Parts: sequence; structure tokens; C-alpha cells
Amino acid sequence: MLTAASAVVLLSGGLDSTTTLAMAKAEGFACHALSFNYGQRHKIELDAATRVAEALGVAEHLILSFDLGTYGGSALTGNHEVPKDRSTGVMGRDIPITYVPARNTIFLAHALGWAEVLGAFDLFIGANAVDYSGYPDCRPEFISAFESLANLATGAGVTRAGRFRIHAPLLHMTKAEIVKKGTELGVDYSLTHSCYDPKNEIACGRCDACQLRLAGFAAAGLKDPIAYVQKPMSLTQQQVLH
Amino acid sequence: MLTAASAVVLLSGGLDSTTTLAMAKAEGFACHALSFNYGQRHKIELDAATRVAEALGVAEHLILSFDLGTYGGSALTGNHEVPKDRSTGVMGRDIPITYVPARNTIFLAHALGWAEVLGAFDLFIGANAVDYSGYPDCRPEFISAFESLANLATGAGVTRAGRFRIHAPLLHMTKAEIVKKGTELGVDYSLTHSCYDPKNEIACGRCDACQLRLAGFAAAGLKDPIAYVQKPMSLTQQQVLH
Repeated sequence: MLTAASAVVLLSGGLDSTTTLAMAKAEGFACHALSFNYGQRHKIELDAATRVAEALGVAEHLILSFDLGTYGGSALTGNHEVPKDRSTGVMGRDIPITYVPARNTIFLAHALGWAEVLGAFDLFIGANAVDYSGYPDCRPEFISAFESLANLATGAGVTRAGRFRIHAPLLHMTKAEIVKKGTELGVDYSLTHSCYDPKNEIACGRCDACQLRLAGFAAAGLKDPIAYVQKPMSLTQQQVLH
Repeated sequence: MLTAASAVVLLSGGLDSTTTLAMAKAEGFACHALSFNYGQRHKIELDAATRVAEALGVAEHLILSFDLGTYGGSALTGNHEVPKDRSTGVMGRDIPITYVPARNTIFLAHALGWAEVLGAFDLFIGANAVDYSGYPDCRPEFISAFESLANLATGAGVTRAGRFRIHAPLLHMTKAEIVKKGTELGVDYSLTHSCYDPKNEIACGRCDACQLRLAGFAAAGLKDPIAYVQKPMSLTQQQVLH
């Protein structure tokens, strides 16, 4: 019997990382899901990550804790207000205040450490460069630079026991394509959480993450199964009704 | 009055990082020292880091906590025995069990995040490729790859507000040269801690870190001011007497 190769998959519990996990699983990897309790204000995403990890039958799910709020610098970890009601058209023009400095570098660095311990050479990240983001660490050139680094940074890179690959399968997909892909793979999006600023565990419907998610489902002609406090102004009535 | 540029300096409280901090200070940087409580068995190095940070008058000292022992893989964070009484001649031939997977990648990633918040573009790390190490993430090509990554990973890399530089001033220095340099700069090495496996806060004298440190002081013709449980067998009586 062949043993499945192991992969470390970054899992926030949101739409993108959940779809990425489903894709890694579909490729036949034994998936080790890694989540972070990093001082984010939307900590309930960790409950979503736990539900998703269980539903998708990961080999292991680890939640690593550190507090990036210690030095602040982001609306996601500090006291800044999360922007609301920005149209998807204006997103991506500037780096938004929800950008967490060096977050994907930090996340991938920890994933690399775990992968090296596991003897895994495949890392999956749900970075997406199309439908937005304005996040510098979601760009293809960042992913590619991290892959080069990984192969220099590690024992495996020296002994040539294997070559690390950073998989970012969503990189060039639209949000609608992501939702369709996950749906094909049987992802239950009711388990996921995307909102940056939930109220009583209910998605606000107005932050960038909610708007992009809703627009993605609408464009895919699919129903977003989670509840919202309010639907965004920028979507037409026809799009958000379901 | 000119304001000093800020730098983030990785500070373990050991000989190398302390010397690096003194060098960054001598270059005129306002130093923000970053230490990690990462599950290392020699946690008392954090007391040393705190003493050193105070003695060298840093602008700020931050200790970030996360537990790399969660996934193990190293004698420094797990239950493996720390190797003892290896001669300095055999060190560096293989990657030692004290290597912590992806540690410098993880440390630099966090330093990068803090630097971005501070508006700093200079990161200092006491990596040293000469007198040992067998650690893949102490090699010049790793440092250079991280610098490239930093400039792609961050908002600053996109807006071109500045260019990140990873300073590794010890990279090509021998341990003896490092000790001499620090001594010239007035470093008080009695504040520092290097041992991987201290007993009651006293350096063991037998692990790789102790042996390299003692050999460095001996070669520099200087006295190591800290106490040792035992002096290494590999140094001659004449070298270790002081």
C-alpha cells in the first residue's frame, strides 16, 4: 500500500483556505492543517478551522499561538476600525489597514518548520492575487521567493533529501471560481468563517472579506450558506437575495 | 537634531547576538531588540537577553512567545539529549540535533513584521557561518534569500518606501574575532548566556555552544567571565585556566 505524502496546509477557516485544503486532499496528500491564534479580533475563525479540519478529515490540526498584537500595526490585531462598505472596485488600489505586517511570511515560516519535522515538502496556502487583495504577500513573486528561501533555510535544502514546493492553487482564480471549485469538491461552506469583524459570531456583511465572499457566491450563482448581520450596499438586491 | 534610524535586532542573550546588538548600536541605530520564548530548554537565556538589552540601552525589548516544542524536531525544544563533549573539529560536518527546524526563518519573519510596524528597514541577526555551524539557516545564501523575500513580502516592498536590509555582521567572523570585537565595543560578556543545557543556571561547559564559546575566548586570549559546571575536555588545561 502506498503511503500518502504529507503536506502542511495553512487553514484559517475561511473560504479560501478551506477550498485550498479540499484541493490538497483531492491531490492525495495527507494534510496537516496549521492555524494561528495570533491576536486576531476575529478569533472565532479558529472554531471554523477546527470544524473544517474535522469535516475534511485531516491527519492532524495544530493551532499555534502568538500575539502579533504585541506590536500592532493592523486593524486585524490592533484597535483600528475595520473598514466597512468599501465597494469591491476600490479594494486593491492601496494596501488596506487590515494587512497584517509580514503575516504570510510568518505563517509560512512556521509551516516550514512543521513540515521539516514531518518530513513533508509540500506547503499549501490559500493566497489569492486576483479578486483583490492589495496584500503584498499574496503576490505570485512572494510565493516564488518563499519557495526559494525554504530550500535554502532548511536541513532538507542542504542534504537535498527533497525540494520544498509552496502550492498556492487559488493564486490566479477569481472568488467565483474558488467557490465553484470548492463546491465541486463537496466543501460545506456553512462551516467556514470569513468576516474580519463579526458581531456575536455573525458575519458583518460589510467588511472587505464579507463583501468579496458574497460577491463571489453571487457571481458563481451559488448561495452563501452562512448568516450575515447585514448585506452589503454594493451588491444589487437580485445578487444578495437567496 | 537627526533622529537615529530604527533597527530590529534579534537578541537571544548569547555571545553572538549580544555582539551584534553592540555593533548595531555602534552604527548609530536605535535598536529594538526581539527575543523569543519558543519552548527552548535553555529559557534562562531570556534573562540574559533582558540584562543585555538594558545594559546596551535599547529603545525597546520585546519577548514574543510561541511554542515550537508543539511539533518538536529538535534537542533544543524536545526531549532529545543535547550532545556533549563533541570536539569542535567534528561540529559542522552534519546538521546537529540542536538545529531547530526553520528557526531563523521564523525569527526573521517576526522581526520583519515588527520592523514594518516601526517603519524600520534594518534587521540584524547574529548568524555566523565560520566557526561552525552546520545550521542551514546561518549560511550567507539564506540571509541573502531572506532579504529578497522581505522586499517582496511587505507593504514597503510594494510602495518602495524603503529597502529592507538583513545585516549579519558576524557571518564571516571567527568566534575569537567576535569576542574581540565585542570587547572593543565594551560588551560585558558576564551578562550573556550561551549554554544549551544549563544546570541551575550554570553553563554546562560541554555542549557545542559552551565549547565554541570557550574556544573563542581562549583563541582571543581573553577570559570568559561566566561560570561553568565543568570545562570541556577538548581544551587544554592552559587554555581554560583563568
